[in-house]
Amino acid sequence: MNYPNGLTKKVPAPVKNNTSFANRGMSLETDINETNMFYLATDRAIIHKKPTPVQIVNVNYPKRSAAVITEAYFKQASTTDYNGLYRNKYIDFEAKETNNKTSFPLANIHEHQIKHMHAIVKHGGISFIIIRFTQLNETYFLSAEHLFTYWENQFNGGRKSVPYADIKQHGFQIPFQYQARVNYLAIIDQLYF
Amino acid sequence: MNYPNGLTKKVPAPVKNNTSFANRGMSLETDINETNMFYLATDRAIIHKKPTPVQIVNVNYPKRSAAVITEAYFKQASTTDYNGLYRNKYIDFEAKETNNKTSFPLANIHEHQIKHMHAIVKHGGISFIIIRFTQLNETYFLSAEHLFTYWENQFNGGRKSVPYADIKQHGFQIPFQYQARVNYLAIIDQLYF
Repeated sequence: MNYPNGLTKKVPAPVKNNTSFANRGMSLETDINETNMFYLATDRAIIHKKPTPVQIVNVNYPKRSAAVITEAYFKQASTTDYNGLYRNKYIDFEAKETNNKTSFPLANIHEHQIKHMHAIVKHGGISFIIIRFTQLNETYFLSAEHLFTYWENQFNGGRKSVPYADIKQHGFQIPFQYQARVNYLAIIDQLYF
Repeated sequence: MNYPNGLTKKVPAPVKNNTSFANRGMSLETDINETNMFYLATDRAIIHKKPTPVQIVNVNYPKRSAAVITEAYFKQASTTDYNGLYRNKYIDFEAKETNNKTSFPLANIHEHQIKHMHAIVKHGGISFIIIRFTQLNETYFLSAEHLFTYWENQFNGGRKSVPYADIKQHGFQIPFQYQARVNYLAIIDQLYF
């Protein structure tokens, strides 16, 4: 499968890992949130993480202070975690970390998220997943189209995970930058524009 | 100010209000959520309300049952409530009801939401506000560009609200349909495509 502009695997230039490990210890979510804040502050893109969906059951309204939610439950998200706007395009993605070193388990993704990503691609949005191999300190961009292939294969006797080697082959390592710790727009620039 | 395709005020055809008042009593949010579900089910658009942002402070993990959030607080949203994808375009809007019959108070909107909407328009998205005059049972689409004008005027000695008559003049009444109770895509189709 090829990327929209017909590129296969020549961009971007291989990223030398930051060997100072300055980016260790931060969660992928924190890194992406900081990256998005940097994009916003520099007027490059408007991309936000959606709030965690919560079913609120009870709220107390104490006098002279803020309302306190005293009973609530986590709800399953029906979409991906991040979306927004970049260069006139709708952007939509999920981000997942794994401690696994040899593959990314598909159990990290839900069926309704795949369905959502299919709809996004169909309606002209850019959809992908950011996968971090925490132990390797490597973060990859894998297009929704590639993810779909692995997702469907698992129901036809295929593996229940995406091998690390395949992610290296079909995905793109996301460069680390001081201010844009997960600089995924660099990949989007090369793949979609 | 004109809409992107140069239309001024001839579309859409005036909407006869549903005099059965079948749509009374439902909140604007409920109506928009149902409309979005209908759009999603019919594969027209992928537009969701963002979850209410909540700062979670305490969570209990009882054995054999779901985690319970026992202390949390409402946070102010930094963006608008709704966003998504329609016909390759990024869509972003806020929705507000007012009991006022003669104007829409600008106090319903926050400064950071206006800033967000400015960024959306600048980067090629479609941004607007849906305003319902609950007492009149009328719901309007007002483009972000028009909203900006009123927003800025208030700091130059202008009114702190948008008169109902101005909304009728510069906005578009959103047709009510049984399955798409706030059929705002009908307005977007005519204004932006």
